[in-house]
Amino acid sequence: ETHTHTETEMEVMQVLHMNKGEGETSYAQNSTVQRNIMTLANSFIEEALVVLLCNNNYPESMGIADLGCSSGPNTLMLVSEVIGAICAVSRQMDRLMPELRVSLNDLPGNDFNNIFVSLPAFYNKLKEEKLGSGFDQCFISGVPGSFYGRLFPRRSLHFVHSSSSLHWLSQVPPALDSKAGVTLNKGKIYISKTSPVSVLEAYLVQFQKDFSLFLRSRSEEMVPGGSMVLSFMGRISADPSDEKSCHQWELLSHALMSMVSEGFVQEEKIDSFNSPYYAPCPEELESEIMKEGSFTVDRLKTIEVDWDAGFSKSHEAQNCTKSETLTSGQRVAKTIRAVVESMLESHFGKEIMDELFRRYTLLVDDYFSKARPKYVNLVISITKKG
Amino acid sequence: ETHTHTETEMEVMQVLHMNKGEGETSYAQNSTVQRNIMTLANSFIEEALVVLLCNNNYPESMGIADLGCSSGPNTLMLVSEVIGAICAVSRQMDRLMPELRVSLNDLPGNDFNNIFVSLPAFYNKLKEEKLGSGFDQCFISGVPGSFYGRLFPRRSLHFVHSSSSLHWLSQVPPALDSKAGVTLNKGKIYISKTSPVSVLEAYLVQFQKDFSLFLRSRSEEMVPGGSMVLSFMGRISADPSDEKSCHQWELLSHALMSMVSEGFVQEEKIDSFNSPYYAPCPEELESEIMKEGSFTVDRLKTIEVDWDAGFSKSHEAQNCTKSETLTSGQRVAKTIRAVVESMLESHFGKEIMDELFRRYTLLVDDYFSKARPKYVNLVISITKKG
Repeated sequence: ETHTHTETEMEVMQVLHMNKGEGETSYAQNSTVQRNIMTLANSFIEEALVVLLCNNNYPESMGIADLGCSSGPNTLMLVSEVIGAICAVSRQMDRLMPELRVSLNDLPGNDFNNIFVSLPAFYNKLKEEKLGSGFDQCFISGVPGSFYGRLFPRRSLHFVHSSSSLHWLSQVPPALDSKAGVTLNKGKIYISKTSPVSVLEAYLVQFQKDFSLFLRSRSEEMVPGGSMVLSFMGRISADPSDEKSCHQWELLSHALMSMVSEGFVQEEKIDSFNSPYYAPCPEELESEIMKEGSFTVDRLKTIEVDWDAGFSKSHEAQNCTKSETLTSGQRVAKTIRAVVESMLESHFGKEIMDELFRRYTLLVDDYFSKARPKYVNLVISITKKG
Repeated sequence: ETHTHTETEMEVMQVLHMNKGEGETSYAQNSTVQRNIMTLANSFIEEALVVLLCNNNYPESMGIADLGCSSGPNTLMLVSEVIGAICAVSRQMDRLMPELRVSLNDLPGNDFNNIFVSLPAFYNKLKEEKLGSGFDQCFISGVPGSFYGRLFPRRSLHFVHSSSSLHWLSQVPPALDSKAGVTLNKGKIYISKTSPVSVLEAYLVQFQKDFSLFLRSRSEEMVPGGSMVLSFMGRISADPSDEKSCHQWELLSHALMSMVSEGFVQEEKIDSFNSPYYAPCPEELESEIMKEGSFTVDRLKTIEVDWDAGFSKSHEAQNCTKSETLTSGQRVAKTIRAVVESMLESHFGKEIMDELFRRYTLLVDDYFSKARPKYVNLVISITKKG
């Protein structure tokens, strides 16, 4: 099925990307939360690969894709993890390693250059480590494009992974798009306690449309018996305005609104901005999988991750000693900034970013004095029907 | 066959890339010569695709690779050209278009981000133009790595293209490497009239080693009957120190040497630098193809291209009006700088680049007052044996 990108989708494709490079506000330097989430899904990956390689005709050549791979240390850590797991299964089964085709996908604005320059050293390290284990070669490529649509040849993939990406929608729900001239979600940038029902509905409809297109596209690309492990922001409560599902956005809208009175930001600018994001609950997810019909659910779990990556409890999670002196608010603000800055910048202007995240830091620190906030992540493993 | 990159190969991988971005000294802005060369090879591409799609089992899914794709306008122009040719053949044969898998390869330092951001618009344009012609989808990916070694899965490619890339060696010939502590090629940076025979031999040996590894790697990756169209700098004369084969390097070494007396450059720096480049003659090329044994030569041609992309004769070749006021020396210097600056910079230092190319411009202008210099390009079409 041919999918031509609409203007509103093109917009998200252009403005949504993790902060590039290796600098202080880069995603590469501020993605510990996402690394922790990835690590928590490792057992899902290992389990899926065992089932895949045992049940199926053991493939000679195996297609693997990471959707929303981003850049920085997490990208190749995931590739290492998957290759390691395949090595282990092959050894256990006393089979030759399959030829591995690894596709790293993200939106075209992702910093692929940053990943690619580290590949020669990565290949050399891989060959050293895996020498003697039957590992021969893996072929890594970059595939730029939206995963809401076809990205790969028909029946070319055996294993698909995606972490911290599927909470991004293909576009702002059309009913909320500023071009429609209406401002349904005054003073907010995502679903909030004060949002009218029409806002909640618009977000749910967009999620349903996007997630079913995601499943349909993968269904064409995957071999029967192939499996997907997906993890992304979600919620436990049935209510999408539940604090655990959206308070990071709530505080960001507070930070923005606090800048209105001093003339840093126009209130209409905030009214007309809505984030192309949705945190579904397990039922919403399962319902779309059922409706689409080509996958079975193997396992679904909700996990909770500290907003500040557990730094307030322990200091062992980070190797950068400098960051250990940061407050929780600073950590959270750096994490969120590395993810959403490109998007906010294009709407509100580059010049207010430092001030916005300074205010956000204070609001988050204040919140931490009253709460121990956690993100809810859904991890799900599904298999393409035979 | 596993190929682990040696340190000297890693060096070339890190320092050799066309100038990034879209600025005045970027390759994107200074690749008209390479575009002209590509255009001159179009008839080879069309011919190869006709034979491939008529003779072979017409493929359902077709693997296409462009090796040394660089970035800037030439990259996607080539993709357009190849897709257009496949569309035309399919129409003529009244067949459905095959699914197209297009891999864009270059060294990891290439500006892939620059290509990727223009892909959404490229896909939309493609779908518009090819609507109704049976064209459905093509899947474009980036494959970073050296083509002197495996890059793609076994038997995955039907058509391979490479333009203006295979004259780059995988490394400086080891006998000439500065780390060996010898300076065989005093005052020169490539083969010159004054170079001892050992220099010519060292270059030839490295070319033979690299080109045979190139063929062996592609042989594993291509389907029987698959074809390759390669074009790159070469020479007509049997003598590798022939003026037509290396005078652009000769003048560059003159420019460098002229900076020694004024203290801009140390003479030892020049003695210890040799370019990882070789311009073979047709016999050297054919000899390696014969020795390797898995390809047959369909067609080989030498073409000559003006150093200044024909601007001294006509003004129609370029759409940028500003550049029409440049001298031939300025044009040539900009073309060469966009290609070799990354390499020279890492050896001689960033700070002398402006001055070096200022002097180079004058030397080239002077040369143009006496000659009408041309580059020799070899274009060859070869087919993987059944």
